[in-house]
Parts: sequence; C-alpha cells; structure tokens
Amino acid sequence: MANYKRITLGDIKTLGRITLHNDLALTGSEVSINELPAGVAVPFVHAHQQNEEVYLILSGKGLFYLDGEELALCEGDVLRVDPVAKRCIKADAGSSLRFVCIQSKANSLNQFTETDGVPAEGTPSWM
Amino acid sequence: MANYKRITLGDIKTLGRITLHNDLALTGSEVSINELPAGVAVPFVHAHQQNEEVYLILSGKGLFYLDGEELALCEGDVLRVDPVAKRCIKADAGSSLRFVCIQSKANSLNQFTETDGVPAEGTPSWM
Repeated sequence: MANYKRITLGDIKTLGRITLHNDLALTGSEVSINELPAGVAVPFVHAHQQNEEVYLILSGKGLFYLDGEELALCEGDVLRVDPVAKRCIKADAGSSLRFVCIQSKANSLNQFTETDGVPAEGTPSWM
Repeated sequence: MANYKRITLGDIKTLGRITLHNDLALTGSEVSINELPAGVAVPFVHAHQQNEEVYLILSGKGLFYLDGEELALCEGDVLRVDPVAKRCIKADAGSSLRFVCIQSKANSLNQFTETDGVPAEGTPSWM
C-alpha cells in the first residue's frame, strides 16, 4: 500500500465544508476546510475532551467567541484553542468566512521538523 | 492564562514560510504555511520518524516526489504522507506553490469532532 493518499478538492475558494480524516485515512489529526456563509454562526458553543484546535482564517471576516470574549477575525488570523475553551464562530453579516480547522490530541507531539525529519534516499527528476 | 492564542499574519497570499508551533505554543501539531517560488524545490528528500504530514495546496502548481513517484499538484490537492515516505516538493517553473503543511504524531488521535467535542455553556452576543 502506498505511503500516502491524495485527494483533489478543486477550487478551495468555492468549497463548502469538507472533513478530511476519513477520506485521507488520517491517524494524527482531523483537518477540515470550512465555509460559514455571511451572517451564519455555528449553532452551538462547544469545548473538546482531548483535542487542541488550530484555526487558520483563509478569507472573510467574522467573530470568535472564546470563554466569554469575542475576537474579530480576518484573513491571516491563526489561533490555538485549548480543549477546555468554550468556543463558537460566526461569519460577519457582509462576508462569508472560510477557514481551516485542525484537531490534534493536546500534548501528543513529541518532536517536529528538524528533530523529527530525517534525510532520505531518493532522486527526484529535478535533482 | 487564556485558553487560546491568536496571531495575525496578514495577507496569506503574500507570506513567505511561517511556522506556527512556537508562536502559537502548539502541543499537538506543527503547522506551517509555505511558499516555494516558481521553479524552486525543497533542496533535499526527507522522511519522518514519528509524524504524519498533511499537505493542503492553496495555490499554484508543482510536483510532489513520493517514494519514487511524482504527482502533479494543483490548488485544492490534499495529501496524507506517512512518516516513512521519502518526499520532496517543487514549484512549477511558471508558478509559485503555496501550501499548508501539518505535522502530527501518527496514530495519536483517539477521537475527533462528534466524539471529542462536548456542548459547553456560554452565550455569544449573537445567540
């Protein structure tokens, strides 16, 4: 079996909500690409049991409710949200809000990049 | 201490490479936003010891070397890459390649979304 899986989603500026865990057979994260239409909010406040979330705002404006605070969101905002945080998110009345949300188990990462990566054999056509 | 951290990166269509682990104090993942200029490749082939990677191509075209295969990449491609896979990535001569790369520990996710999320108290201003 190949050591990877690839899916082609097409134009990410026009997608609805897509969750990738099952389609990519992920084992360390859940990754979703989300769009809230203008004026629309997630209809509930929630927290998590185990998972830290990372939000990456791709386009649009909105509001992030976090433990009673409300943060104005815009393109290029990135957030870490701890499992216990009570959260909700809403698109501004005048723009849809597109964002990536990553769930991973809090405190599960032991090492990364230079400490996890290792040089490997292989010669791409351009080398 | 707040149960979240937020950073504003600005226009993600013009960023260089940004790594978020340290700035967001992430504990379950490393998330980077990357840009390879037209014609440029990561200058080495690498694998990982523990971490699964997810790639999300935001814009541009390129090539992904994976264990001797080469996949043509375009906007909206998403890939899971297992730790052991020997990988390299290159932007096409005619376009820069912008992508998100997520590292998380393979097999670390126990549950997600409906099985990890729990309803929480709180009343955003719009509810």
